[in-house]
Amino acid sequence: MSSSISKVLSLTAGVAMSLGAVTVAQAQSAPLSAQESDPRVMGWMQGFPPPEDKIITQPDSVYFSFPKLRWSVCHLREFLPTEEISRGLGAPVPLSYPSPSEFADLRSKIDALTFTPLGAEAPMTWEESLYANYTDGIIVLHKGKVVYERYFGCMDEGAKHAAMSMTKSVTGLLAEILVVEGALDDTKLVRDIIPEVADGAFGSATVRQVMDMVTGVRYSENYADPNADIWIYSAAASPLPKPEGYTGSNGYWEYLAQVQPEGNHGDAFHYKTINSDMLGWIISRTAGKSVTDLASDRLWSRMGAEQDAYQTVDGKGVPFAGGGISLGLRDAARLGLLMLNKGEINGERLFPAEVAENIAKGGDQSKFSGYASIPNGSYTSQWWVFHNDHGAFAARGVHGQTIYVDPTAEMVLVRFASFPTAANADIDPTSLPAYQAVAEYLMAGH
Amino acid sequence: MSSSISKVLSLTAGVAMSLGAVTVAQAQSAPLSAQESDPRVMGWMQGFPPPEDKIITQPDSVYFSFPKLRWSVCHLREFLPTEEISRGLGAPVPLSYPSPSEFADLRSKIDALTFTPLGAEAPMTWEESLYANYTDGIIVLHKGKVVYERYFGCMDEGAKHAAMSMTKSVTGLLAEILVVEGALDDTKLVRDIIPEVADGAFGSATVRQVMDMVTGVRYSENYADPNADIWIYSAAASPLPKPEGYTGSNGYWEYLAQVQPEGNHGDAFHYKTINSDMLGWIISRTAGKSVTDLASDRLWSRMGAEQDAYQTVDGKGVPFAGGGISLGLRDAARLGLLMLNKGEINGERLFPAEVAENIAKGGDQSKFSGYASIPNGSYTSQWWVFHNDHGAFAARGVHGQTIYVDPTAEMVLVRFASFPTAANADIDPTSLPAYQAVAEYLMAGH
Repeated sequence: MSSSISKVLSLTAGVAMSLGAVTVAQAQSAPLSAQESDPRVMGWMQGFPPPEDKIITQPDSVYFSFPKLRWSVCHLREFLPTEEISRGLGAPVPLSYPSPSEFADLRSKIDALTFTPLGAEAPMTWEESLYANYTDGIIVLHKGKVVYERYFGCMDEGAKHAAMSMTKSVTGLLAEILVVEGALDDTKLVRDIIPEVADGAFGSATVRQVMDMVTGVRYSENYADPNADIWIYSAAASPLPKPEGYTGSNGYWEYLAQVQPEGNHGDAFHYKTINSDMLGWIISRTAGKSVTDLASDRLWSRMGAEQDAYQTVDGKGVPFAGGGISLGLRDAARLGLLMLNKGEINGERLFPAEVAENIAKGGDQSKFSGYASIPNGSYTSQWWVFHNDHGAFAARGVHGQTIYVDPTAEMVLVRFASFPTAANADIDPTSLPAYQAVAEYLMAGH
Repeated sequence: MSSSISKVLSLTAGVAMSLGAVTVAQAQSAPLSAQESDPRVMGWMQGFPPPEDKIITQPDSVYFSFPKLRWSVCHLREFLPTEEISRGLGAPVPLSYPSPSEFADLRSKIDALTFTPLGAEAPMTWEESLYANYTDGIIVLHKGKVVYERYFGCMDEGAKHAAMSMTKSVTGLLAEILVVEGALDDTKLVRDIIPEVADGAFGSATVRQVMDMVTGVRYSENYADPNADIWIYSAAASPLPKPEGYTGSNGYWEYLAQVQPEGNHGDAFHYKTINSDMLGWIISRTAGKSVTDLASDRLWSRMGAEQDAYQTVDGKGVPFAGGGISLGLRDAARLGLLMLNKGEINGERLFPAEVAENIAKGGDQSKFSGYASIPNGSYTSQWWVFHNDHGAFAARGVHGQTIYVDPTAEMVLVRFASFPTAANADIDPTSLPAYQAVAEYLMAGH
């Protein structure tokens, strides 16, 4: 790796961040517990100024490594340039809540629910799982009402938390809306929409293959390899001016244009973030809007959102469609409600029912493998579909982010977290069975 | 200047930006007119991607030079890390408007008002002045009602515009609130509140001297001098990681601790941004909150704001109290209303009347000189006081920003602009007489 590339890497790497690349440096011994690593307990960024060893700064190998990431997941805009996803200027539409006494009663009952983690024998309570998962915020809605809502660590109701790869699901939802509305033909080849990628691997993929991540594109995310594509992509995506002598791509889109093939389009699901950014480019060219403006127009400004969201950008102002959004917990719940209620919220229809139905139906299960905690799953339009008894599907992001929609239980659950390691495989065992347990509890009439 | 410093300077410099340092490179010939330089006409950042020569990127010597700055003043967060000034989660309180027909009638009458620019002989219409001043947004309120509101260039009602040095007035207002409420003793020496500056020039100044910028501190803003303090301050303040070999201060506060004396405290008004950042530090230490959180708690979350604002930060997360805020036009008007109505808005009192009275009364005129367009003026608590017949006072920022409060006319006027040059001396001749003209028109019963 050239020194110029390592230089830009040392500064900031929005992409690597979303993929947890930077957590490789963390201690191999047992990490601090959720309570021990609570950013308020750690004392990060308290005081004016904080003590020198409590200040969290660039680069992201510092600010986005555990336990500092437990603070940073609520403060990404303080490290990186961002674009707004505006909620507009009107009044928010508050979520519905039961009476305070009923709400308190529900909390104590849900906290006491038990479930058995995947691969474990001993049961765990719901409340224990929140700490096991380094939860920062969690909200559960049943039949449109909030039945549970708690904040931990860096979060409160006014905080915006990193969505990480849940960003992809917003990108995918916008794409699916354009497809169902007829503005975007998902059978088209990408090169017919974005001629700039004609000579690269993406040019010959269909839009649908990009949406479902079944493209054959070379992109390695082996963080131990200094020549892995993730690092080159990170250098291209850095919003900072390129160092002298830098000869790589500048920005997400320049990188995407030169991606090389690996395998065949359509053969198998390969979870590669560059598909999401390719999709963001396709969306922007098609709609004539940035993904931030489109997300504002189609979702945030019409769903009664309480807060603006924001999205990190590269050095040319292109939002990171694969991982750059930060948003409020309740606004993430509004996105979940929109999916559960097939495009309707607050009595208004924001997109055709078919959009949510297409996503809930899932993708090609025969092409999906490699996720032990999601057997029989699929991935379509940048959403994970479990194909379980409840027909659940989800947006998911590293370090434990999820918007989990259970149509059978009429439940939406959002969890923000800052788990020490990135991979959801580490977090699913104490998460997915907990979601199923609360769904069954709510279905039983609580 | 060492190469390491010039390196960091080439990246970003929030301070220099607020002071217009970067405009020195602009063409010496007549600049493009407001209409010609309209960012929509220029085509900046249109398309996905925009043409290569229409992309605006770092460093600030590029993005904040005319005519690109006409786009960038609405997009600072896309270049720099920022902290939010939250409006909270409730419903905004809309400003009051006359009926649409009355509003349209007022607009045409105000557009046709004439005045004679300072030093000129030929009169100019109000509407002509908006273009002469490269106005991006302007709103006028009379007796609490919006009587005029127009947007140009990069702005619309949902945009956030750089406040530049109007930021100082928010900082000063927060300080004055703390003083009047008794939390901050403005007769104290700075070193008794911030021991870290005991060995520097600020240590022996009183809080009040800092608030009124009558300190004797060495800080040159001669942009032609590569060793000027402004450049060193900019390098310290850059939110980017310091380059290898950098040995200067890291962050606003480290710089402030080592500022050297020049002249005596109390002798004269010297407009030096470092006073505002010193005040920000004093406020934060006193209130136990960042200026962003304090501005949210005391102003934005309680004034019915429509939008969050934001503030750029240094590499340690310290907000730029001397120039870092971007905010909506109507929210700036709400700040003006708070000043006009001595702390009350929407029927609620946000701070004691004495706060606004102290500011309106002004500072020591005998110490004020050097501003041809503000004869007899003064500067107190980071506000400019005109000591004119109407008792007007203002927040002011380079490139034409103002919140102008005229208590006699019961008028609040906010103008955001992106004038080609930084100094308000260039803009005042076609601004201050226009404000007086509209004030007189409104007083005459319109």
